Amino acid sequence: MARFSFNQATAKHWPLADVVAGCAAAGVPGIGLWREPVQEYGLDRAARLVRDAGLAVTSLCRGGFFTAPGWRDENRRAIEEAATLGTRELVLVSGGLPPGSRDVDGARRQVADAIAALAPEARAAGVRLAIEPLHPMFCADRCVVTTLGQALDIAEQFDPAVVGVVVDTYHVWWDDTVYAQIARAGDRIAAFQVADWVTPLPEGVLLGRALPGEGCVEVRRLREAVDAAGYTGPVEVEVFQADLWSRPGPDVLAATIASYLAHVP
Amino acid sequence: MARFSFNQATAKHWPLADVVAGCAAAGVPGIGLWREPVQEYGLDRAARLVRDAGLAVTSLCRGGFFTAPGWRDENRRAIEEAATLGTRELVLVSGGLPPGSRDVDGARRQVADAIAALAPEARAAGVRLAIEPLHPMFCADRCVVTTLGQALDIAEQFDPAVVGVVVDTYHVWWDDTVYAQIARAGDRIAAFQVADWVTPLPEGVLLGRALPGEGCVEVRRLREAVDAAGYTGPVEVEVFQADLWSRPGPDVLAATIASYLAHVP
Repeated sequence: MARFSFNQATAKHWPLADVVAGCAAAGVPGIGLWREPVQEYGLDRAARLVRDAGLAVTSLCRGGFFTAPGWRDENRRAIEEAATLGTRELVLVSGGLPPGSRDVDGARRQVADAIAALAPEARAAGVRLAIEPLHPMFCADRCVVTTLGQALDIAEQFDPAVVGVVVDTYHVWWDDTVYAQIARAGDRIAAFQVADWVTPLPEGVLLGRALPGEGCVEVRRLREAVDAAGYTGPVEVEVFQADLWSRPGPDVLAATIASYLAHVP
Repeated sequence: MARFSFNQATAKHWPLADVVAGCAAAGVPGIGLWREPVQEYGLDRAARLVRDAGLAVTSLCRGGFFTAPGWRDENRRAIEEAATLGTRELVLVSGGLPPGSRDVDGARRQVADAIAALAPEARAAGVRLAIEPLHPMFCADRCVVTTLGQALDIAEQFDPAVVGVVVDTYHVWWDDTVYAQIARAGDRIAAFQVADWVTPLPEGVLLGRALPGEGCVEVRRLREAVDAAGYTGPVEVEVFQADLWSRPGPDVLAATIASYLAHVP
């Protein structure tokens, strides 16, 4: 369990105080937090809560959405929140095409420009901007960064201490270049998240993920690849799934730990 | 209209004789056919039907599914059917992972081996094996060939007269390397198909496509890119969409021609 981290979105409807208590009671060493439930609970209060529980905050989800109005202020706040919560890793989901736009190249330039603009602020705050490529099925509406190679093309323009990448098994497993790109990523791997792929995908495709071992992704092989690339950090299980979200938080955590132990280390 | 081809799957429920008559009446020069409706109508009879109507068969969908039992005989039949129908281009959708398998590398090797086995038969029949990369969201269950680059890595092991690739705007638009890969493809581009991307994706994601101009894909830019790579062949509109399929065939054809003329040439 030493590297296990529970991303709170896996039990989306479990209140923050309860998920923190549940993780601490289960001997979970780390937790991945989301900005919305943290803001709802209160930022400083949430920071104290996790600190007092002895939990490491392994990442904060999420900054990004650079093609939306107000991105700059929103991402400044996200950097501050990450620093306050005591995590180094701010996960960035780049955003998709602006409404009505077909200019995917332009959107990608905006992402690179935004990261350049934010990098000094992240460095000053001791926070790393962790670019997460999402599966290409999210390119239009969530994330124009669709492959690990593309994320690295951006990240490599910056100090690896300031701009890294997220490797999420759900988003990258299909890519025939993924093992080469993981090796290339090396010390830019800021976070490693795991979820499994199952079909059929549900409407909207956001909630189609599964716990490790339930689908067709070689989760352990990908974990071994990030390790071989030099990554020694936490392994966050992050699953968005309607069925899982309908279950009591403690059950979700227990199922997540069980699937992690069976399929990841 | 000189390059326009109507893929019959765009009006899935329009009987073959009617779609052929409708295309001929509308001055459509080419049609893309599917094996199942052709078999249902009768292969030789279908070949006469399209020939008598003066329509070019721009492609036959589809061979492939190399990870399924019986793939070899099935693909031999598909090659013969393409030859009988008078089309050079047999579209291959590779197939996904076998049930319960996580071995995506193994499935990809099977695809390359199957194409090697079929290439002599295709050559003898005067048919080109046209490898179609599908969008990565189909990797698990339909097609482990997910990018144009990956399709070319396979195709380049063979004579371009015998093994080519399909560029379908719906499947490749998200790829940040797509324009480089189209340039690389050159005379291996065996078919160019167009459809547009709209969100939200429906359950199962198969029927989420839209007519050119209705979504976020730079269809004309991609058409210009295949032209610049040397492609001079037909442009097939192929849209799988439940709403479109519920409309009368002549309406679907008229809507398809209108969207093609407005957004492709």
